[in-house]
Amino acid sequence: MASPVIALITDFGLEDWFVGVTKGVILSINPDATIIDVVHNVPRHDVVAGSFAVLASYSYVPPGAIVVIVVDPGVGTGRAILCMRSAGRYFLAPDNGVLTGIAEREGFEQLATVENDEYFIKPVSSTFHGRDIFAPVAAHLSLGVELDRLGREVKDLKRVEIPSPRIDGEALVLTVRWIDAFGNVITDCPADLVAEVVGRWGRDLALAEGARRLKITDDYESVGRGDFLAIIGSTGHLEVSVREGNAAETLNLRIGSRLGIRKA
Amino acid sequence: MASPVIALITDFGLEDWFVGVTKGVILSINPDATIIDVVHNVPRHDVVAGSFAVLASYSYVPPGAIVVIVVDPGVGTGRAILCMRSAGRYFLAPDNGVLTGIAEREGFEQLATVENDEYFIKPVSSTFHGRDIFAPVAAHLSLGVELDRLGREVKDLKRVEIPSPRIDGEALVLTVRWIDAFGNVITDCPADLVAEVVGRWGRDLALAEGARRLKITDDYESVGRGDFLAIIGSTGHLEVSVREGNAAETLNLRIGSRLGIRKA
Amino acid sequence: MASPVIALITDFGLEDWFVGVTKGVILSINPDATIIDVVHNVPRHDVVAGSFAVLASYSYVPPGAIVVIVVDPGVGTGRAILCMRSAGRYFLAPDNGVLTGIAEREGFEQLATVENDEYFIKPVSSTFHGRDIFAPVAAHLSLGVELDRLGREVKDLKRVEIPSPRIDGEALVLTVRWIDAFGNVITDCPADLVAEVVGRWGRDLALAEGARRLKITDDYESVGRGDFLAIIGSTGHLEVSVREGNAAETLNLRIGSRLGIRKA
Repeated sequence: MASPVIALITDFGLEDWFVGVTKGVILSINPDATIIDVVHNVPRHDVVAGSFAVLASYSYVPPGAIVVIVVDPGVGTGRAILCMRSAGRYFLAPDNGVLTGIAEREGFEQLATVENDEYFIKPVSSTFHGRDIFAPVAAHLSLGVELDRLGREVKDLKRVEIPSPRIDGEALVLTVRWIDAFGNVITDCPADLVAEVVGRWGRDLALAEGARRLKITDDYESVGRGDFLAIIGSTGHLEVSVREGNAAETLNLRIGSRLGIRKA
Repeated sequence: MASPVIALITDFGLEDWFVGVTKGVILSINPDATIIDVVHNVPRHDVVAGSFAVLASYSYVPPGAIVVIVVDPGVGTGRAILCMRSAGRYFLAPDNGVLTGIAEREGFEQLATVENDEYFIKPVSSTFHGRDIFAPVAAHLSLGVELDRLGREVKDLKRVEIPSPRIDGEALVLTVRWIDAFGNVITDCPADLVAEVVGRWGRDLALAEGARRLKITDDYESVGRGDFLAIIGSTGHLEVSVREGNAAETLNLRIGSRLGIRKA
Repeated sequence: MASPVIALITDFGLEDWFVGVTKGVILSINPDATIIDVVHNVPRHDVVAGSFAVLASYSYVPPGAIVVIVVDPGVGTGRAILCMRSAGRYFLAPDNGVLTGIAEREGFEQLATVENDEYFIKPVSSTFHGRDIFAPVAAHLSLGVELDRLGREVKDLKRVEIPSPRIDGEALVLTVRWIDAFGNVITDCPADLVAEVVGRWGRDLALAEGARRLKITDDYESVGRGDFLAIIGSTGHLEVSVREGNAAETLNLRIGSRLGIRKA
């Protein structure tokens, strides 16, 4: 039987050897591991963005996979590391809120700290737990080590406050969750809330800032070049785009920015 | 026996989770698949550049491989998706001309539409067919599903017009096909046309624009630092470079730009 | 038994198909090969930086691995290619000094030229030996071809001069070996020399240039935002950082730059 997939979500970037040695450690322990690079460009130390990247991807990694999430501003401090069983997969992450999204959507079946240093690379460096703790623990999990061997069972995890999309008077108030390489602005607005807004105000809307027109549509070709459109994107959330342009730059938006949409 | 390789050529970039979830879908269906990232930085929606990337790489992916090409400006519209058997490999791509180069060089043995949604991830999103159609279809092909199960046999594919290199009076007129990360300008000029030009005009030539000297040579060290040279590059085409410099920036060239070379 | 890992260290970048076709060649010869991308962003043609990237990573790739190092300014000239057995792994690299670091730290058990073109892809291009020589030779090694089949045994390799960190009067004089994607400045100063400096001068030090304060510490949180700190990083060397900032940009440092640290 194939070994479970190990899926990596990090803020390491791809410029250095950090991802490479993480994989080397995994394969040193489990030569049959299959590793997927889900994303390595989570904005550095951005736990809320990391939480969204998990939501955007977890259901597409194979059932049984071990999802390793290293967005870890507290590396080298006393923050705990957790292993959570949820949605048919394992999630290995620092206890810093990066699991908030998945825990709120799916709950969890089992949750334990990662403390048993029998599974660590020693000496453990103070700055690179991805290599020295996350990678070897993931490899041992993929070999069949039970979650309860890793540490103590715990009842709950740290959660970060993530603002909810809402209709506030005459405006739909959203938060930017991700900006892709093309400048498409992925918001936190789910499809059902989009449907409600369209029911109330129609599809021809406006951005609150600057009163630019924004059309809610199903494809990129129903507005002119340089015009704004919004579409239910591949994560199931509303995405704001500029046809053949870069919406994030045009609107000066970053991850975490607020965005208002109102009746035209 | 090892499962056929699945080779990915896309314009997704590497910043987001788009490549990662594409691989997750493939491995969910065929856990033994071997995946190669050929290139993910085809300029966005540039079908002609994608066609060249296929030509530069296909003969180096293992025979039997499934080459998945997602350069797809028409995603979400009615454009067809094709699966083409050619040169001992399968090519899965939108019917938008991105297969022009390989079809013209190698012809094809079999060609079918991809319509059988039994092999798709549902619901199919309107913006990410790489994840919802191309990935699962490629995985099923790698498991042995026959091409004729995917859709209807068709006779031909959409082709884009790709200009040919030519000698026009006193100038060799070329088109830029790719610019690599170092600024080397890969043209469409094959080795036999280079030989013809050298036979007529010698190796000491000039760029039509600005009359800069250009030497046709076999290595980077036969001109001075900052000087232009042209070499038969690894794709078998003439490449224009600046020794220890960036030719594309210096000449302000982009993919698709014309480039004239003449007698010095 | 699993096939040995093939680990890639190159200056190819990730924008083009260069890494992809290198992998395609390997898998065409050994379909069971497991390939790790250690790092592809060694600064182009920088043999000294490449030598450091090898030192930072080799002990984390699985024993028995074949480490392929393509940082090769002399491609297409007469420079030799070497295969070196050292530290339980194979290192395949141009004979240009890029093996200096590993050879000086670990010595070697066997050293041979790579000349037997029976293992090359033909015709060998003049610009892409990664694809035409390194990849197929690595694949054949991973299938069990003996090192002495590749060429002639040789006694030594080319070495580049790499400056040593030293205490020079009142200053610790270091060289920048790498700058990571976050602007952390990885120096050549090993932990024992750091201990000696701390013993003499304490932990509150200063940068020679500009007299900025620099604290030697164990975590990023013991200085204020925007302040300088130095830490023993994950390679075992002193790294200079700015808390929540970019040290390399702030100090205008590049790989190879000198850096002085002195008593505050």
